[in-house]
This record gives sequence, structure tokens and C-alpha cells, in this order.
Amino acid sequence: MEENIIYIGNKPVMNYVLAVVTQINNGNENVYLKARGKAISRAVDVAEIVRNRFIPECEIDEIKTNTEEIKNNDGMTTNVSTIEIYLKKE
Amino acid sequence: MEENIIYIGNKPVMNYVLAVVTQINNGNENVYLKARGKAISRAVDVAEIVRNRFIPECEIDEIKTNTEEIKNNDGMTTNVSTIEIYLKKE
Repeated sequence: MEENIIYIGNKPVMNYVLAVVTQINNGNENVYLKARGKAISRAVDVAEIVRNRFIPECEIDEIKTNTEEIKNNDGMTTNVSTIEIYLKKE
Repeated sequence: MEENIIYIGNKPVMNYVLAVVTQINNGNENVYLKARGKAISRAVDVAEIVRNRFIPECEIDEIKTNTEEIKNNDGMTTNVSTIEIYLKKE
């Protein structure tokens, strides 16, 4: 299952789109996008571009959000929002 | 219904949190957050902060994404992702 997860970071959006399309073309019917903080908007872009431009049979099955605590070096904790987008090829 | 929609833009996140909390405290059991582009991450922050810090009975009922076409002044169109987050007080 681990290999179906694509972590969205700060690279150009098309890098992640290509990763998703490759996974689905390799026979994975489920791909999970994970992102946190400002990369959340990019994760939504990836999902929208995949289904609108590349794989029309691909649908967003579910979207979940959460909050993670991140510890800084000085022991302080900061909260950051996360998103998980479940893509499914029908 | 229109008054239940809160559009998330570029203001500080707590402005929108306050708007949501006010609506719910005024008796609205459903509040919808809408955002597009880079404000999408902020919309997720708003939802997470409302339910984690202010209104624990508030749950995310559904999250939808979409793509909108925006026309520039020169007639070109750009695609932008959108998100709708449905908050529900149980």
C-alpha cells in the first residue's frame, strides 16, 4: 500500500501529476495524495489536473483533513494542517 | 442559505475562524467554506482550528474540489482549483 502514497511538496505541480498518472497506468487503481501546510493547495491542483486532463475515469473518492504537531528545535510545537486525497480509477 | 457561506481569502486565518464561530453561535448548524487557489490551505486551517480549538462538536461533513476557468483581460483563460468544506455542528 505504501507505494500508492504520493507526498506533495514544493516541486512543480506537473511532477506530481506525472507520478500519479504513472502509478495509475501501472495498474494501481487507488492513489493517495498527502500534503501539509501550503502544499495543500498544490495537492488539490494535482487531483484536479489528473482527472480533468489525463484520466477522466479517475475520481476523488474521499478527502480527509487533520492537524499535526511539529516540534521545533527549541522544543516548541506548532500545529500544521494536513490533507489526504484518495483518488480512485473507476 | 447564502449567509452560511464564508469565502476564504487573504486575510489572517483567525478572521475567518471568528466568522465561522459567530455563525455557529448564532444558531447556524451548517457553515460552508469556499476558497480557491492558494487560499485553499487557509480554508483547511480554518476548519481544523474551529473544530480543534473552539467547537469540538463541529465536524467536517464533506469536502469537494472543482476547477474554475478565470478569464484574464487579454481574453486568455487560466484554470484555478477550488475547494468547498461543509462544516456541521452535531
